[in-house]
Amino acid sequence: MADPSTCPPLTPASIAAAHAKIAPYIHRTPLLTSKTLDKIASSPNPRAYLTDNPPIGSKNGDQSSNTVATPRLRLHFKAENQQRIGAFKARGAFHALMRLNETMGLDELRRRGGVITHSSGNHAQALALAAHVFGVPSCIVMPGISTPSKILGTKEYATEVVFSGSTSVERVEKVKEMQARSSGEGAVLVPPYDHPDIVLGQGTVGLEMGEQFVEGRGKDEEKKELDLVVAPIGGGGLLGGIATWFSDKPTKVVGAEPSFQGADDARRGLVERKRIESVKSLTIADGLRTPVGVVNWGIVSDKEKLEAVYAVSEEEIKMAMRLVWERMKCVVEPSGCVALATVLFNEEFRKWIAEQQKEGEFWDVGVVFSGGNTTMKAVAALFGEEKESIPEEREEGKVGKGGERVAENVAG
Amino acid sequence: MADPSTCPPLTPASIAAAHAKIAPYIHRTPLLTSKTLDKIASSPNPRAYLTDNPPIGSKNGDQSSNTVATPRLRLHFKAENQQRIGAFKARGAFHALMRLNETMGLDELRRRGGVITHSSGNHAQALALAAHVFGVPSCIVMPGISTPSKILGTKEYATEVVFSGSTSVERVEKVKEMQARSSGEGAVLVPPYDHPDIVLGQGTVGLEMGEQFVEGRGKDEEKKELDLVVAPIGGGGLLGGIATWFSDKPTKVVGAEPSFQGADDARRGLVERKRIESVKSLTIADGLRTPVGVVNWGIVSDKEKLEAVYAVSEEEIKMAMRLVWERMKCVVEPSGCVALATVLFNEEFRKWIAEQQKEGEFWDVGVVFSGGNTTMKAVAALFGEEKESIPEEREEGKVGKGGERVAENVAG
Repeated sequence: MADPSTCPPLTPASIAAAHAKIAPYIHRTPLLTSKTLDKIASSPNPRAYLTDNPPIGSKNGDQSSNTVATPRLRLHFKAENQQRIGAFKARGAFHALMRLNETMGLDELRRRGGVITHSSGNHAQALALAAHVFGVPSCIVMPGISTPSKILGTKEYATEVVFSGSTSVERVEKVKEMQARSSGEGAVLVPPYDHPDIVLGQGTVGLEMGEQFVEGRGKDEEKKELDLVVAPIGGGGLLGGIATWFSDKPTKVVGAEPSFQGADDARRGLVERKRIESVKSLTIADGLRTPVGVVNWGIVSDKEKLEAVYAVSEEEIKMAMRLVWERMKCVVEPSGCVALATVLFNEEFRKWIAEQQKEGEFWDVGVVFSGGNTTMKAVAALFGEEKESIPEEREEGKVGKGGERVAENVAG
Repeated sequence: MADPSTCPPLTPASIAAAHAKIAPYIHRTPLLTSKTLDKIASSPNPRAYLTDNPPIGSKNGDQSSNTVATPRLRLHFKAENQQRIGAFKARGAFHALMRLNETMGLDELRRRGGVITHSSGNHAQALALAAHVFGVPSCIVMPGISTPSKILGTKEYATEVVFSGSTSVERVEKVKEMQARSSGEGAVLVPPYDHPDIVLGQGTVGLEMGEQFVEGRGKDEEKKELDLVVAPIGGGGLLGGIATWFSDKPTKVVGAEPSFQGADDARRGLVERKRIESVKSLTIADGLRTPVGVVNWGIVSDKEKLEAVYAVSEEEIKMAMRLVWERMKCVVEPSGCVALATVLFNEEFRKWIAEQQKEGEFWDVGVVFSGGNTTMKAVAALFGEEKESIPEEREEGKVGKGGERVAENVAG
């Protein structure tokens, strides 16, 4: 793609321009609310709702591990699991294609052999779809260890899927090899996250959240902006774009990461004041295993744009996932549940909010569900080993204590 | 509840009246569409999309078990999994409470001890919620073998949860025992499905589907009615209500049942021309294990109101569930996937449509997702034993064949 220095500046205006371009090609995914999740998030101990003795009605549940901080929250979930190809990545990919059309023209792009990328995940599918829509050839290099579902999803639209070794060196080698087949420069590389055109595309998530929050408020209500948006960070395209969009607005922006095996490279990098260049983690949040990109580090390390990054454990991600699936009836992949896990379970984050809130004040918090690409098999593997809780005292006539609970009140 | 003979007649007008009453208390759940599901449903062999070699783009997949019939369908999914308490049952329960208020008054109802029912499932939660909203006590008799999640969901709003043996005789005995505690007649029994007030409440699903279909059509399009609605049938409250709503409209109505261990009692009853009174099935579609009720049999056995009932296997229900979760990103319980399973996999049903369709004609088919109350544990148990498909020929540079596929294009 174009030299980043020739791209539109990383500003809210550029994101608005990107949105105007890609709007016909993407879904304006809904901004969901759930009174049940609001109640859980605003309780002293959200974990209690996942125990064998949850709070019921006004009765207290197991509050033994009470947290100190009890923020008061109204949550607004951006359902990018319902985006085309099942993740926000469609936004950046369509924007990249439209920018290539502007700078080079589709005919020249086709002459060069179209677009190429290396990705094992949602970016692969997104770029293949966008290229397909514009009638441009696409070559997707995937590590041989990619899951069958992702390979098939990519093959749905890609002109060509090619396998490589799984290290980044091997992937890049394979891309060069593919480009070298052409007599000229070869197909144009569209990187998954570390490029201004990708960041500007993903930033449209923030733009829509802001718009939809206002649309959903009553006319008499004064508040015109979300107080806070929490989004996951892997390579940083999504969070960087969102932080850029809100950089001239009162809405604060926070990043959310898995902590497993050092996948919290953004959080650690902010502490150490330098970008961490390599991550080797097998966190269940497989979309967030990458280190933050160079362009994106410039955004997320800017205190004017990003408040902080918080990390959560694998167990916390799974707990958030259970609440999203069982209570909200939404299929969101583990990476997509990391922002909610932070809101519910990260003590430092919750304390940070609670300490700023005045008596009785509620914050409107946007939470990004970044994608929904998982399978029944993957879910079975994640949740299949938990023991079934058998309620005690279940003889006739007695009230049982019960185990886990299912959505008793969807958005009710 | 009131003697059925004193209830409003089972007519579309009565359903419209019921809707006006309950609308403030229920969610107007969305009517969803999915181009991906339309494509699969309108393909010669929907099963091929669940094989290791699915159709990709315009390429053919495994079409070896080609069906004869290829109906052309546009599907419209009524997302009652997003209803309050996670299932359509909230409609009937709120209508029952409002009718009791009309006929007896809430004060008298409270004086008698409120409402009582026996149910192991969604009706228990729905009645407890409706009674809670109206400030009326509720006593719910649940079989001791009920799942922990359903017990906890019910306890969220019920005044009292009491356990009984699991046979219907034992349940009814327990209800009488509870009513006998009172000096008068005791709490008023609100049956789960076999009562006109319940049927009229559930029929509002049909009313909303008709309205939402028209709202979703372009203004220039002539078609003003769905061609067909497919809904699951257990006790028959939902299907009976929907069939009643469309009885004066061109929209046809069809029922869908699991066939496992004779759970297809409605289908078999229509063949034998008499209601089957007892069912003992452990189908995974646990909401559809009951025989059709007496009042409801009067509706579903009326050829003017219902076209037919079709049955599907456990495997077909699971295949439909995978498509709903993985492609549409919606959490729908097994019972809620039975209507879609029929649309995709029942040959007789598909042939019946295809034979009526003119060249190039598409039918707009409403499909009811009746509820979403399941747990990660239950899903893990259902899908945990399937073998992982490992794509072949996955050395570097070759294109893999791949196993299952995930949502490559949500409603895209």
